[in-house]
Amino acid sequence: MPYVNIKITDDGVTQAEKKALIQGTTKLLQEVLNKDPQSTFVVIDEVDTDNWGIGYETVTEIRKG
Amino acid sequence: MPYVNIKITDDGVTQAEKKALIQGTTKLLQEVLNKDPQSTFVVIDEVDTDNWGIGYETVTEIRKG
Amino acid sequence: MPYVNIKITDDGVTQAEKKALIQGTTKLLQEVLNKDPQSTFVVIDEVDTDNWGIGYETVTEIRKG
Amino acid sequence: MPYVNIKITDDGVTQAEKKALIQGTTKLLQEVLNKDPQSTFVVIDEVDTDNWGIGYETVTEIRKG
Amino acid sequence: MPYVNIKITDDGVTQAEKKALIQGTTKLLQEVLNKDPQSTFVVIDEVDTDNWGIGYETVTEIRKG
Amino acid sequence: MPYVNIKITDDGVTQAEKKALIQGTTKLLQEVLNKDPQSTFVVIDEVDTDNWGIGYETVTEIRKG
Repeated sequence: MPYVNIKITDDGVTQAEKKALIQGTTKLLQEVLNKDPQSTFVVIDEVDTDNWGIGYETVTEIRKG
Repeated sequence: MPYVNIKITDDGVTQAEKKALIQGTTKLLQEVLNKDPQSTFVVIDEVDTDNWGIGYETVTEIRKG
Repeated sequence: MPYVNIKITDDGVTQAEKKALIQGTTKLLQEVLNKDPQSTFVVIDEVDTDNWGIGYETVTEIRKG
Repeated sequence: MPYVNIKITDDGVTQAEKKALIQGTTKLLQEVLNKDPQSTFVVIDEVDTDNWGIGYETVTEIRKG
Repeated sequence: MPYVNIKITDDGVTQAEKKALIQGTTKLLQEVLNKDPQSTFVVIDEVDTDNWGIGYETVTEIRKG
Repeated sequence: MPYVNIKITDDGVTQAEKKALIQGTTKLLQEVLNKDPQSTFVVIDEVDTDNWGIGYETVTEIRKG
Protein backbone atom coordinates (compact mmCIF):
# COMPACT_ATOMS: atom_id res chain seq x y z
CA MET A 1 0.00 0.00 0.00
CA PRO A 2 2.60 2.60 -0.87
CA TYR A 3 1.67 6.18 -1.64
CA VAL A 4 4.10 8.17 -3.75
CA ASN A 5 3.85 11.89 -4.44
CA ILE A 6 6.03 13.32 -7.21
CA LYS A 7 6.33 17.10 -7.37
CA ILE A 8 7.77 18.53 -10.58
CA THR A 9 7.63 21.88 -12.30
CA ASP A 10 4.76 22.50 -14.72
CA ASP A 11 6.69 22.32 -18.00
CA GLY A 12 4.26 20.71 -20.41
CA VAL A 13 4.77 17.19 -19.11
CA THR A 14 2.98 14.89 -21.55
CA GLN A 15 0.49 12.11 -20.79
CA ALA A 16 3.10 9.60 -21.96
CA GLU A 17 5.71 11.01 -19.59
CA LYS A 18 3.25 10.94 -16.69
CA LYS A 19 2.42 7.34 -17.47
CA ALA A 20 6.14 6.50 -17.59
CA LEU A 21 6.61 8.04 -14.13
CA ILE A 22 3.63 6.10 -12.75
CA GLN A 23 4.77 2.80 -14.27
CA GLY A 24 8.40 3.22 -13.28
CA THR A 25 7.57 4.08 -9.68
CA THR A 26 5.07 1.23 -9.34
CA LYS A 27 7.57 -1.25 -10.80
CA LEU A 28 10.32 -0.01 -8.48
CA LEU A 29 8.16 -0.60 -5.39
CA GLN A 30 7.23 -4.04 -6.67
CA GLU A 31 10.86 -4.99 -7.33
CA VAL A 32 12.44 -3.52 -4.20
CA LEU A 33 9.76 -4.17 -1.58
CA ASN A 34 7.41 -6.63 -3.28
CA LYS A 35 4.51 -4.18 -3.04
CA ASP A 36 1.29 -5.01 -4.86
CA PRO A 37 0.84 -2.67 -7.86
CA GLN A 38 -2.94 -2.73 -7.33
CA SER A 39 -2.48 -0.93 -4.02
CA THR A 40 0.29 1.44 -5.09
CA PHE A 41 -0.88 5.03 -5.60
CA VAL A 42 1.26 7.53 -7.48
CA VAL A 43 0.15 11.17 -7.52
CA ILE A 44 1.96 13.76 -9.66
CA ASP A 45 1.77 17.45 -8.73
CA GLU A 46 2.80 19.96 -11.39
CA VAL A 47 3.99 23.18 -9.76
CA ASP A 48 4.16 26.60 -11.45
CA THR A 49 7.79 27.74 -11.78
CA ASP A 50 6.88 30.96 -9.93
CA ASN A 51 5.92 28.82 -6.94
CA TRP A 52 9.15 26.80 -6.65
CA GLY A 53 12.25 28.32 -5.15
CA ILE A 54 15.85 27.16 -4.83
CA GLY A 55 18.80 29.20 -3.61
CA TYR A 56 16.81 32.41 -3.02
CA GLU A 57 15.38 32.41 -6.57
CA THR A 58 12.24 31.12 -8.22
CA VAL A 59 12.68 28.50 -10.94
CA THR A 60 11.22 31.10 -13.34
CA GLU A 61 14.22 33.32 -12.64
CA ILE A 62 16.76 30.49 -12.68
CA ARG A 63 15.58 29.43 -16.16
CA LYS A 64 15.92 32.99 -17.48
CA GLY A 65 19.51 32.80 -16.33
CA MET B 1 -4.91 21.67 15.94
CA PRO B 2 -5.34 18.91 13.41
CA TYR B 3 -4.48 19.37 9.77
CA VAL B 4 -6.22 17.08 7.28
CA ASN B 5 -5.39 16.85 3.59
CA ILE B 6 -7.86 15.02 1.35
CA LYS B 7 -6.66 14.14 -2.15
CA ILE B 8 -9.35 13.12 -4.63
CA THR B 9 -9.60 13.04 -8.39
CA ASP B 10 -10.87 16.16 -10.15
CA ASP B 11 -14.33 14.96 -11.15
CA GLY B 12 -16.52 18.00 -10.82
CA VAL B 13 -16.80 17.84 -7.05
CA THR B 14 -19.42 20.41 -6.04
CA GLN B 15 -19.18 23.13 -3.40
CA ALA B 16 -21.79 21.24 -1.37
CA GLU B 17 -19.75 18.02 -1.52
CA LYS B 18 -16.58 19.88 -0.49
CA LYS B 19 -18.43 21.41 2.42
CA ALA B 20 -19.74 17.97 3.43
CA LEU B 21 -16.16 16.62 3.45
CA ILE B 22 -14.94 19.54 5.55
CA GLN B 23 -17.80 19.29 8.03
CA GLY B 24 -17.63 15.50 8.31
CA THR B 25 -13.87 15.50 8.92
CA THR B 26 -14.04 18.31 11.46
CA LYS B 27 -16.88 16.57 13.33
CA LEU B 28 -14.97 13.27 13.34
CA LEU B 29 -11.92 14.88 14.95
CA GLN B 30 -14.12 16.58 17.52
CA GLU B 31 -15.92 13.36 18.40
CA VAL B 32 -12.94 10.99 18.43
CA LEU B 33 -10.19 13.20 19.86
CA ASN B 34 -12.08 16.18 21.26
CA LYS B 35 -10.27 18.56 18.90
CA ASP B 36 -11.45 22.16 18.67
CA PRO B 37 -13.15 22.78 15.29
CA GLN B 38 -11.82 26.35 15.27
CA SER B 39 -8.28 25.00 14.98
CA THR B 40 -9.01 22.12 12.60
CA PHE B 41 -7.86 22.76 9.04
CA VAL B 42 -9.13 20.64 6.17
CA VAL B 43 -7.53 21.13 2.73
CA ILE B 44 -8.93 19.36 -0.34
CA ASP B 45 -6.66 18.75 -3.36
CA GLU B 46 -8.37 17.85 -6.63
CA VAL B 47 -5.98 15.86 -8.83
CA ASP B 48 -6.25 15.47 -12.63
CA THR B 49 -7.00 11.82 -13.53
CA ASP B 50 -3.91 11.83 -15.80
CA ASN B 51 -1.80 12.54 -12.71
CA TRP B 52 -3.06 9.71 -10.51
CA GLY B 53 -1.86 6.17 -11.05
CA ILE B 54 -2.88 2.80 -9.61
CA GLY B 55 -1.71 -0.62 -10.74
CA TYR B 56 0.48 0.68 -13.60
CA GLU B 57 -2.37 2.73 -15.12
CA THR B 58 -3.59 6.29 -14.84
CA VAL B 59 -7.11 6.80 -13.50
CA THR B 60 -7.95 8.24 -16.94
CA GLU B 61 -7.18 4.83 -18.47
CA ILE B 62 -8.89 2.86 -15.71
CA ARG B 63 -12.12 4.82 -16.23
CA LYS B 64 -12.05 4.16 -19.97
CA GLY B 65 -11.98 0.50 -19.08
CA MET C 1 -9.01 6.30 -4.90
CA PRO C 2 -8.83 8.99 -2.25
CA TYR C 3 -5.78 9.54 -0.11
CA VAL C 4 -6.29 11.23 3.24
CA ASN C 5 -3.51 12.39 5.54
CA ILE C 6 -4.44 13.34 9.09
CA LYS C 7 -1.82 15.20 11.13
CA ILE C 8 -2.42 15.39 14.86
CA THR C 9 -0.23 15.98 17.87
CA ASP C 10 1.37 12.94 19.48
CA ASP C 11 -0.75 12.71 22.64
CA GLY C 12 -1.08 9.02 23.29
CA VAL C 13 -3.74 8.43 20.64
CA THR C 14 -4.99 4.86 21.15
CA GLN C 15 -5.37 2.11 18.55
CA ALA C 16 -9.14 2.37 18.96
CA GLU C 17 -9.08 6.12 18.31
CA LYS C 18 -6.91 5.63 15.22
CA LYS C 19 -9.30 3.02 13.95
CA ALA C 20 -12.24 5.37 14.56
CA LEU C 21 -10.50 8.08 12.51
CA ILE C 22 -9.80 5.63 9.68
CA GLN C 23 -13.35 4.26 9.66
CA GLY C 24 -15.01 7.67 9.93
CA THR C 25 -12.94 9.16 7.11
CA THR C 26 -13.49 6.17 4.84
CA LYS C 27 -17.24 6.22 5.49
CA LEU C 28 -17.41 9.97 4.82
CA LEU C 29 -15.77 9.56 1.40
CA GLN C 30 -18.10 6.69 0.59
CA GLU C 31 -21.19 8.67 1.59
CA VAL C 32 -20.28 12.03 0.06
CA LEU C 33 -18.47 10.98 -3.13
CA ASN C 34 -19.32 7.29 -3.46
CA LYS C 35 -15.64 6.33 -3.20
CA ASP C 36 -14.75 2.65 -2.88
CA PRO C 37 -13.45 1.94 0.66
CA GLN C 38 -11.08 -0.68 -0.75
CA SER C 39 -9.18 2.08 -2.55
CA THR C 40 -9.35 4.70 0.17
CA PHE C 41 -6.07 5.20 2.03
CA VAL C 42 -5.96 7.02 5.36
CA VAL C 43 -2.55 7.81 6.86
CA ILE C 44 -2.25 9.31 10.35
CA ASP C 45 0.89 11.29 11.29
CA GLU C 46 1.48 11.92 14.98
CA VAL C 47 3.58 15.06 15.45
CA ASP C 48 5.65 15.91 18.55
CA THR C 49 4.20 18.98 20.30
CA ASP C 50 7.65 20.65 20.05
CA ASN C 51 7.35 20.40 16.27
CA TRP C 52 3.94 22.05 15.85
CA GLY C 53 3.58 25.81 16.07
CA ILE C 54 0.59 28.15 16.18
CA GLY C 55 0.65 31.87 16.84
CA TYR C 56 4.43 32.09 17.40
CA GLU C 57 4.41 29.31 20.02
CA THR C 58 4.93 25.58 20.02
CA VAL C 59 2.02 23.43 21.15
CA THR C 60 4.26 22.35 24.05
CA GLU C 61 4.28 25.96 25.28
CA ILE C 62 0.59 26.55 24.59
CA ARG C 63 -0.35 23.53 26.71
CA LYS C 64 1.80 24.74 29.62
CA GLY C 65 -0.25 27.92 29.45
CA MET D 1 18.67 19.96 2.16
CA PRO D 2 15.43 21.26 3.60
CA TYR D 3 12.12 21.05 1.80
CA VAL D 4 9.45 23.56 2.76
CA ASN D 5 5.86 23.49 1.56
CA ILE D 6 3.75 26.59 2.13
CA LYS D 7 0.00 26.24 1.63
CA ILE D 8 -1.97 29.46 1.37
CA THR D 9 -5.32 30.43 -0.07
CA ASP D 10 -5.42 31.47 -3.71
CA ASP D 11 -5.95 35.21 -3.28
CA GLY D 12 -4.02 36.78 -6.10
CA VAL D 13 -0.62 36.36 -4.46
CA THR D 14 1.85 38.30 -6.63
CA GLN D 15 5.18 37.12 -8.04
CA ALA D 16 6.92 39.58 -5.70
CA GLU D 17 5.11 38.15 -2.67
CA LYS D 18 5.97 34.59 -3.70
CA LYS D 19 9.59 35.60 -4.09
CA ALA D 20 9.53 37.23 -0.64
CA LEU D 21 8.19 33.98 0.88
CA ILE D 22 10.88 31.94 -0.87
CA GLN D 23 13.69 34.28 0.15
CA GLY D 24 12.49 34.66 3.72
CA THR D 25 12.14 30.92 4.26
CA THR D 26 15.51 30.15 2.70
CA LYS D 27 17.23 32.82 4.80
CA LEU D 28 15.54 31.52 7.97
CA LEU D 29 16.86 28.01 7.38
CA GLN D 30 20.31 29.37 6.67
CA GLU D 31 20.34 31.48 9.84
CA VAL D 32 18.78 28.98 12.25
CA LEU D 33 20.24 25.68 11.01
CA ASN D 34 23.06 26.77 8.68
CA LYS D 35 21.38 25.06 5.72
CA ASP D 36 22.79 25.66 2.25
CA PRO D 37 20.39 27.85 0.21
CA GLN D 38 21.40 25.97 -2.95
CA SER D 39 19.79 22.83 -1.55
CA THR D 40 16.76 24.45 0.06
CA PHE D 41 13.53 23.89 -1.86
CA VAL D 42 10.45 26.01 -1.17
CA VAL D 43 7.19 25.03 -2.86
CA ILE D 44 4.09 27.24 -2.57
CA ASP D 45 0.63 25.72 -3.05
CA GLU D 46 -2.24 28.12 -3.67
CA VAL D 47 -5.52 26.55 -2.55
CA ASP D 48 -9.01 27.58 -3.72
CA THR D 49 -10.99 29.07 -0.82
CA ASP D 50 -13.77 26.51 -1.50
CA ASN D 51 -11.22 23.77 -0.74
CA TRP D 52 -10.00 25.04 2.64
CA GLY D 53 -12.10 24.55 5.74
CA ILE D 54 -11.82 25.82 9.32
CA GLY D 55 -14.39 25.45 12.08
CA TYR D 56 -16.98 23.64 9.92
CA GLU D 57 -16.91 26.35 7.22
CA THR D 58 -15.05 26.91 3.98
CA VAL D 59 -12.81 29.98 3.78
CA THR D 60 -15.16 31.21 1.03
CA GLU D 61 -17.99 31.33 3.58
CA ILE D 62 -15.83 32.77 6.37
CA ARG D 63 -14.80 35.67 4.13
CA LYS D 64 -18.43 36.42 3.22
CA GLY D 65 -19.03 36.75 6.95
CA MET E 1 14.29 20.00 -9.10
CA PRO E 2 11.83 17.22 -8.40
CA TYR E 3 10.74 16.32 -4.91
CA VAL E 4 9.46 12.80 -4.34
CA ASN E 5 7.86 11.55 -1.14
CA ILE E 6 7.44 7.80 -0.74
CA LYS E 7 5.17 6.62 2.08
CA ILE E 8 5.42 2.94 3.00
CA THR E 9 4.58 0.90 6.05
CA ASP E 10 7.27 0.50 8.70
CA ASP E 11 8.22 -3.13 8.09
CA GLY E 12 11.93 -3.24 8.75
CA VAL E 13 12.92 -1.70 5.42
CA THR E 14 16.69 -2.05 5.18
CA GLN E 15 19.26 0.63 4.31
CA ALA E 16 19.93 -1.20 1.04
CA GLU E 17 16.23 -1.18 0.14
CA LYS E 18 15.96 2.52 0.95
CA LYS E 19 18.97 3.22 -1.23
CA ALA E 20 17.42 1.18 -4.05
CA LEU E 21 14.22 3.27 -3.81
CA ILE E 22 16.22 6.51 -3.87
CA GLN E 23 18.37 5.42 -6.80
CA GLY E 24 15.49 4.01 -8.82
CA THR E 25 13.35 7.10 -8.38
CA THR E 26 16.20 9.47 -9.22
CA LYS E 27 17.09 7.46 -12.33
CA LEU E 28 13.44 7.41 -13.44
CA LEU E 29 13.19 11.20 -13.27
CA GLN E 30 16.46 11.54 -15.15
CA GLU E 31 15.35 9.15 -17.89
CA VAL E 32 11.76 10.35 -18.31
CA LEU E 33 12.11 14.10 -17.76
CA ASN E 34 15.86 14.68 -17.97
CA LYS E 35 15.95 15.99 -14.38
CA ASP E 36 19.33 16.61 -12.77
CA PRO E 37 19.97 13.99 -10.06
CA GLN E 38 21.84 16.59 -7.99
CA SER E 39 18.60 18.49 -7.54
CA THR E 40 16.28 15.51 -7.10
CA PHE E 41 15.18 14.97 -3.49
CA VAL E 42 13.64 11.67 -2.41
CA VAL E 43 12.17 11.44 1.10
CA ILE E 44 10.92 8.12 2.49
CA ASP E 45 8.34 8.11 5.31
CA GLU E 46 7.87 4.84 7.19
CA VAL E 47 4.38 4.69 8.68
CA ASP E 48 3.30 2.48 11.60
CA THR E 49 0.81 -0.16 10.43
CA ASP E 50 -1.64 1.06 13.11
CA ASN E 51 -1.63 4.46 11.39
CA TRP E 52 -2.46 3.30 7.84
CA GLY E 53 -5.99 2.35 6.91
CA ILE E 54 -7.53 0.76 3.82
CA GLY E 55 -11.09 -0.45 3.44
CA TYR E 56 -12.16 0.42 7.02
CA GLU E 57 -9.26 -1.53 8.55
CA THR E 58 -5.76 -0.73 9.73
CA VAL E 59 -2.91 -2.49 7.96
CA THR E 60 -2.17 -4.13 11.33
CA GLU E 61 -5.57 -5.83 11.18
CA ILE E 62 -5.33 -6.68 7.47
CA ARG E 63 -2.01 -8.46 8.05
CA LYS E 64 -3.47 -10.52 10.88
CA GLY E 65 -6.07 -11.68 8.39
CA MET F 1 -4.82 30.31 7.54
CA PRO F 2 -1.49 29.21 6.14
CA TYR F 3 -0.09 25.75 6.73
CA VAL F 4 3.66 25.33 6.48
CA ASN F 5 5.50 22.02 6.54
CA ILE F 6 9.27 22.11 7.03
CA LYS F 7 11.15 18.89 6.35
CA ILE F 8 14.72 18.74 7.62
CA THR F 9 17.14 15.96 8.45
CA ASP F 10 17.08 14.61 11.99
CA ASP F 11 20.33 16.11 13.31
CA GLY F 12 19.60 16.91 16.90
CA VAL F 13 17.64 20.07 16.18
CA THR F 14 17.05 21.76 19.54
CA GLN F 15 13.79 23.06 20.99
CA ALA F 16 15.15 26.61 20.63
CA GLU F 17 15.94 26.05 16.94
CA LYS F 18 12.49 24.60 16.33
CA LYS F 19 10.92 27.59 18.03
CA ALA F 20 13.06 29.93 15.89
CA LEU F 21 11.80 28.19 12.73
CA ILE F 22 8.19 28.45 13.88
CA GLN F 23 8.50 32.10 14.85
CA GLY F 24 10.41 33.10 11.72
CA THR F 25 7.94 31.39 9.41
CA THR F 26 4.92 32.84 11.18
CA LYS F 27 6.41 36.33 11.11
CA LEU F 28 7.24 36.02 7.40
CA LEU F 29 3.65 35.13 6.54
CA GLN F 30 2.40 38.01 8.65
CA GLU F 31 4.76 40.50 7.01
CA VAL F 32 4.42 39.35 3.39
CA LEU F 33 0.75 38.37 3.22
CA ASN F 34 -0.73 39.85 6.39
CA LYS F 35 -1.73 36.41 7.65
CA ASP F 36 -3.01 36.10 11.22
CA PRO F 37 -0.40 34.29 13.38
CA GLN F 38 -3.20 32.68 15.39
CA SER F 39 -4.26 30.73 12.31
CA THR F 40 -0.78 29.95 10.98
CA PHE F 41 0.28 26.34 11.52
CA VAL F 42 3.92 25.31 11.19
CA VAL F 43 4.75 21.60 11.33
CA ILE F 44 8.37 20.41 11.37
CA ASP F 45 9.20 16.88 10.19
CA GLU F 46 12.62 15.50 11.14
CA VAL F 47 13.71 12.87 8.63
CA ASP F 48 16.33 10.15 9.25
CA THR F 49 19.39 10.72 7.03
CA ASP F 50 18.98 7.15 5.69
CA ASN F 51 15.56 8.18 4.37
CA TRP F 52 16.60 11.30 2.44
CA GLY F 53 18.29 10.99 -0.94
CA ILE F 54 19.95 13.50 -3.25
CA GLY F 55 21.93 12.72 -6.39
CA TYR F 56 21.62 8.92 -6.07
CA GLU F 57 22.94 8.89 -2.49
CA THR F 58 21.42 8.99 0.95
CA VAL F 59 22.34 11.96 3.14
CA THR F 60 24.01 9.42 5.46
CA GLU F 61 26.44 8.57 2.67
CA ILE F 62 26.92 12.18 1.55
CA ARG F 63 27.92 13.19 5.08
CA LYS F 64 30.47 10.36 5.30
CA GLY F 65 31.79 11.80 2.07
